[in-house]
Formats: sequence, structure tokens, C-alpha cells
Amino acid sequence: MDRVSKEAGHDARDTPAHQAAADEAPLHEATVSAPVNIAVIKYWGKRDSKLILPTNSSLSVTLSQDHLRTRTTVRAAAEFSSDRLWLNGVEEDVAASARLCNVIATARQLRAAMEQADSTAPRLSTWGLHVCSENNFPTAAGLASSASGYAALVSALGALFELPQSATELSRVARVGSGSACRSMLGGFVAWQAGTMDDGSDSLAEQVAARAHWPQLQALVLVVSDRKKTVSSTAGMQTTVSTSPLFAERVRSVVPHRMAAMRAAIVARDFATFATLAMQDSNQFHAVCQDTFPPIAYMNDTSHAITSLVHAFNAAVGRVAAAYTYDAGPNAVLFVLRDDMRALVQLLTRCFPRPAAMSADAFYADPFAVFASPDLAGRDIDDPAVTALADSVGSFAAGSVRRIIHTEVGDGPRVLPSSESLLNHAGMPKHARE
Amino acid sequence: MDRVSKEAGHDARDTPAHQAAADEAPLHEATVSAPVNIAVIKYWGKRDSKLILPTNSSLSVTLSQDHLRTRTTVRAAAEFSSDRLWLNGVEEDVAASARLCNVIATARQLRAAMEQADSTAPRLSTWGLHVCSENNFPTAAGLASSASGYAALVSALGALFELPQSATELSRVARVGSGSACRSMLGGFVAWQAGTMDDGSDSLAEQVAARAHWPQLQALVLVVSDRKKTVSSTAGMQTTVSTSPLFAERVRSVVPHRMAAMRAAIVARDFATFATLAMQDSNQFHAVCQDTFPPIAYMNDTSHAITSLVHAFNAAVGRVAAAYTYDAGPNAVLFVLRDDMRALVQLLTRCFPRPAAMSADAFYADPFAVFASPDLAGRDIDDPAVTALADSVGSFAAGSVRRIIHTEVGDGPRVLPSSESLLNHAGMPKHARE
Repeated sequence: MDRVSKEAGHDARDTPAHQAAADEAPLHEATVSAPVNIAVIKYWGKRDSKLILPTNSSLSVTLSQDHLRTRTTVRAAAEFSSDRLWLNGVEEDVAASARLCNVIATARQLRAAMEQADSTAPRLSTWGLHVCSENNFPTAAGLASSASGYAALVSALGALFELPQSATELSRVARVGSGSACRSMLGGFVAWQAGTMDDGSDSLAEQVAARAHWPQLQALVLVVSDRKKTVSSTAGMQTTVSTSPLFAERVRSVVPHRMAAMRAAIVARDFATFATLAMQDSNQFHAVCQDTFPPIAYMNDTSHAITSLVHAFNAAVGRVAAAYTYDAGPNAVLFVLRDDMRALVQLLTRCFPRPAAMSADAFYADPFAVFASPDLAGRDIDDPAVTALADSVGSFAAGSVRRIIHTEVGDGPRVLPSSESLLNHAGMPKHARE
Repeated sequence: MDRVSKEAGHDARDTPAHQAAADEAPLHEATVSAPVNIAVIKYWGKRDSKLILPTNSSLSVTLSQDHLRTRTTVRAAAEFSSDRLWLNGVEEDVAASARLCNVIATARQLRAAMEQADSTAPRLSTWGLHVCSENNFPTAAGLASSASGYAALVSALGALFELPQSATELSRVARVGSGSACRSMLGGFVAWQAGTMDDGSDSLAEQVAARAHWPQLQALVLVVSDRKKTVSSTAGMQTTVSTSPLFAERVRSVVPHRMAAMRAAIVARDFATFATLAMQDSNQFHAVCQDTFPPIAYMNDTSHAITSLVHAFNAAVGRVAAAYTYDAGPNAVLFVLRDDMRALVQLLTRCFPRPAAMSADAFYADPFAVFASPDLAGRDIDDPAVTALADSVGSFAAGSVRRIIHTEVGDGPRVLPSSESLLNHAGMPKHARE
């Protein structure tokens, strides 16, 4: 192997003549974007923590990359002396992350197999990699950045290496980076089959239905302010597995039924069943967190108030018109059909007034811009019961909900044109930060 | 039966001569006080809601009546035209409470059996009753007033009627008023055996150990501010039984082991085991509430912060030195051994500053008066780890914890002298309120 750091700047080959030759060589690079997903049957607990094999199957909705996404560029070059990675402009230590190393090594193995079969293929598997990744949302907001991040990385490696594997097959690789990342390898509605094999070969993501299957289904992401440090999901779920007396019952008796019922509800576009199961499974996930020792509380008072508001909204309109779900943090994702969206948003924005001042980051210029959406314009709460409800609930502290993101079901990872590359000619980030 | 309302004032017998005769007749009256109790293995769920038969056994600590108690006077008089009850000076509609009627009727039956056996006994079972009851804590504070209230009522009826039944036997009667009231019929450490009989005859409270068994054990009641309306425990537990998929597993597999282990820990005065089981069972109770549909959240952000602080305290001192438990509300009860009390209180009062202004009710002139306790005077946090912890945690909003009540294990209901009666000569409350 012959890797040279261009950054060192003292290499003998870094001459004008050599540079000109490099300019003419084709770039081995791919840029992709990948979506976040939100589980409606929750993943919590591993049966193998190195391979990230879960204790139970889970099912998620992929959210639109138009609103939340990770974009990643991967370049392979013989000149790269080592693998390097920049996340939102800041370099990370690749060697320090066993999961990251595992993912890269696995993708290289798949490439190496191709190279063995085709002697004309460039030996990309032996070259260094530069990876540059950017989220269009704050990592700290708890919006599943590791899922979209590893899905983007694996998809980019698949494109760079021209791997023949399907998205489902590559979901095994993404899974090794972050369990829920395997579900971000596909669009629409996605099941992560727990599998039973020790090597994880049957623990992968499959599409239950495509994005276009249920165009009426929309989502609101409510970013909730929180002062607490939270327990990482990796640490939290292992503590649950080892200390919660109720957890095994969830895995054994509850999830299998719910997986089947949720799949059927999605196929039938049965919103009431979909919504009820999503709420119940979110609740049970947080129940087993509370049954953990020491207990884990990801939801806060604002989260619980949103839960109560959704149940009150459903009671007011006399049907299951909205659902909530919460991951390992206080943020809520609400599901609602298009026709009910405006009433729900008006209710939420009356009960959770917009923050007086915006926080420093500018990911969302106007977090309450949902009203500008064509879907919502020109419609109002026409249900007297909902209006009365908003008046009766009163309002919570301004800024308890910091942002409202109106989104919908999305597609899987997208390969982007080279003009979208995040790396400059020298293979360094275009948008570096200190 | 010949009951005359003195309040009507028009009865022919309400003459001076008759009145003089009544003055000389002995009063049939009893005044008692009864304690609150806090469950360390939780009662949640009924198998029979009329008889209040629980789905599982539970175990509690009776708290001292010197700090929290209900005082109740019961008087029987042939002149009372109907049963009347005043709670904290306000008359309640006896007939509107099926449980109250059940309790009074059951006590009358026990009295009637005595009267049948002894023809000289006054026919108290046929007379009207006036009941006057006062708590020394705000009912709204969520401090288990129904438990101490029904225990006081049944104990007062037992004294008034001179019933031969033991406290354990009478706990069946208290149970019909409020399940957890049966445990307030005894002091010390009390087990409520779920029983298996359909008539509830084996569902009663038994003393595991007397108050004097473990004098080192002390408690802090932290009254937490809350803006929410809470779900009543009666409604909440029935929803849990009918909707939580995890609840049956708790009843079947978890509680029986914990009851045996908790009993053994108390007998052995093994604080670490006692504390760990208490925390785990409180957590699991709130977990099955969260697994209920719609979910029930009794704990709030302040409660969860207290939980975290207790775990951090234990980590800082390197042993299980304190335990928390929460009932159907945000208030915490902490258990701690006497030698660790001052360090814990100093930690709590640094992290939860006293309210700027006291609330209107004056049940506790100084809610943070715990430092005046002889047990705490003159000692300080001498553990550097605890001091560092207080500094690292920082402080929560002043008034998040409204009151801190320092108490200990207490005795069972006490019969008080007639000078403590809450009823005046006419059988009306001494301290009536509008």
C-alpha cells in the first residue's frame, strides 16, 4: 500500500507535473444524502452488541430528505495516507470509533471481492478514504443523526465502490454502525427483521410499503427544549436488558403481535390502527426505560403535555386523528393525515407559543413556518370542539417547543451529482470549521 | 328507629327538660388519630372493585402521626336523624359515597352482632352517626389522605362500638373504604396480603415488624409543585389493568419475589436491599402507568430530578444510602438512615432552594424547618464527595420542592381523650368552614 498525505506537503511527488496528472485522473468519489427514520415499533435492546443484533424486530417510517437529511461525500484515493472523517466540518478520530472502522472495513471487503473477480477494477479497497458528512439539523437536537449518518456513509461507500448489493443487503452494513441506520437505507415504511442467526446475516431492513403508498400520511417533528443530559441509547438499552424485569415480556409477548398488526395497518392505510399501535409502542418503550435500574426518563414534562394534548385532540374530534411517538429524548414526532394537519398545528401553536427569541443556530429560519406550506394555507380550525379544546388547555411556557418541522414520508438514500460534493479538489472539506 | 334532627329545631322533645336529660346521658363518642403510610411494594390494580381486592400484595411503612395524621371523631346518638360527615370543616354528602356507606354499614353489622349477643348493650347500631375528620396536611398535596382518613374512621367506629376485632380484622373494613387504608390500621411495617377468597376475608393487613424494630430508619416527604391535573388512582389503576400488556407480568412474576425479599430485608434491617427494592418497585409502578393507554404520568420533571439526585448521592457515598418512592403524584418520599440524614437534607436544600414566598396554607410554618430537628442539629456534610456533588448538580427552580417534612416510622391509630373531640356539645364540628 502506498498512501501519501497530501496535507503533509513535503512529498516528492507533490510536484507541478505530478499534480497535473492527478487533475486528469478520474475522481473516485460519491456523494449521497440519506433520511432519518422514526420507529413506530421501537428498537430497544441488543442480543449482540458488536454486530448490533436486536432483541426484537422494529418498524419505522422514513421521513423526507427535503426536511431532514445527512449528506455525505466519500472519496478514495491512492494518495490518502489514512482514513479521515469530518462531521459537520469538524474532524473526528476514525480509529477511535470501532463501529465506524467496522463499517468501513466491511464495505472494503465487499469491494475487495469485486476486485478479485475483475482484475481491471481499480484497487479502491486498498486506498485511503476521506469522508465528509453534514446534517441539515443540529446534531444535539436528538433527531436520529446516527441513523441518517450511517445510512449516508454506507450508501456513499456502495456508490463509490459500485457494489452490486441491494439496499436491503447493504442495510446489514449500516446496522453495524448504528442499529436504526439499517432502516434509513430504504424509503417509505421499513421493517428491521431481528433475525435469528448469530452472524447477523438475517438481521436486515425490508421495505413494507413504498413512500407513494400512503400520500395522505404526514408528520410533525416537535423539537422540545431540555436541560437534562440524557443517557445514550447505547448505554440505556443495555441497562434495560440487564435490569428491567418487564423487558423480556415486551420482547416475547408484545412486539411480535404488534409487528404483524402494524404491517397490516400500513398495507391497509388504516390510520386509527397505525396511530394507536404507534402510541402504545412508544409508551411501552418509555415504560421499560422507567423499569430500568437506575430508571431512564427520556420524556419530560413538555413531552407528556404533548401526549395529553394528542389524546385530548383525538377525543375532541371523536376519532384517532393524530399519534405521537418519542425516541430516546424529549422530542415528539406526530403523525396525522393531511386533512387534519392544519387543525393540529393551530392547536399546537396555541398551546405551545413560539420562542420569544430564536436560538443561535439557524437551521430553521422560522420554525413555525409550517403555515406557509401549501398544504396548510387557506384552511382553518373549523371544528368547534378543537377550538374549545385549545381554549381549555391554555398555553405552556413559550419555547417549550422550540421548533415545529412539517414533513412527510420520504424516499431512501439518493445519489447526488458531483456538483454536490462536500470535498474540495484536495479532498478536504469545503466547509471546514474550527 | 327513632331519629330526630336537632338541627330542625321543631321537634316536640327538644324541650328544656328533655335537653337536660340528654346532657346527663353519657356521650357515645370516640376520637382517634391515624397515620399515613407509604408503600414500598406498590398496590396498583383491583381484582374486585366493590370489595377493593387487589391484584397483588403490597407492603408499606407507616409514617409518624406526629407529622402527618388524620384525626376523626365519631358520635352516635338516637337523636341524629341521618349520618353526616364533615371533612376539614366542610360537610360531605355521605349518601353520594358508596364506599363510605359500605364502611359505615359494615361497622354497624359488627356492632349489631354484639348487640344481639348482649341485650344490655345500647343499640348504637340503630342510631345516626356524626363524623368529623381533619387532616394536618393539605388534602390537595397528594399525601394519601384517603388512607389515613378511612383508617381513622374505622378505628373510631371500632372504639365507639367497642368492637372486639383486632386491628388486622378491622383492616378488612378500612380496605372497603380505600385499599391502602387497610395498611394504615397498623404501625411499623405492614403487609397487605392480596388474598384469594372472593369475599375478601383473607385480604387484610398484617404487621411485618413494629415501629421500634428499626429506629434508625427515617423518612423525608418532599412535596413537589405540580400544575397538572392528575388521574385519580381509582380510575388510573383500572385503566392499567385493562390496557397495559406488561401489568400482568408484574403481578405474576415480579411482585411475589419482591414481597418475600422486602419482608426479609426489613426483618434483617438490611437498608441496601430495602432501599433498592423500594426504588425498583416504585419505578415499576410508574412503568406500568406509562404502559397504560392513554398513558399516565404521575411523576414530573422535579420528581425525576429527585430520582437522579438520589442515585447520584448513593454513587457519591459509594453505597445505597438513600431510596425514593413515589405514589400517584409527583411527591417523593425518601428513606435514609439517621446517620445519613443531614448530608442528604443539605444536598436537597442546596439543589432545590426554598420557595421565595410561602403558599397560602399554613400547615407547615417553615417547610424547611428540618434543620431544627435535634437529629440534624450540629452535624454537617463531612463527605467531600457529597459537597462536590451538590456543586456539580447545580440548583433547580426555587419552589420546585415546596415542603420538606422530616419524619420517621410511626405507630398505628391512637384513641385520643375526649378533650380532643372535634364535635361540640350539639354534635356539630367545632371548626366549621364555609
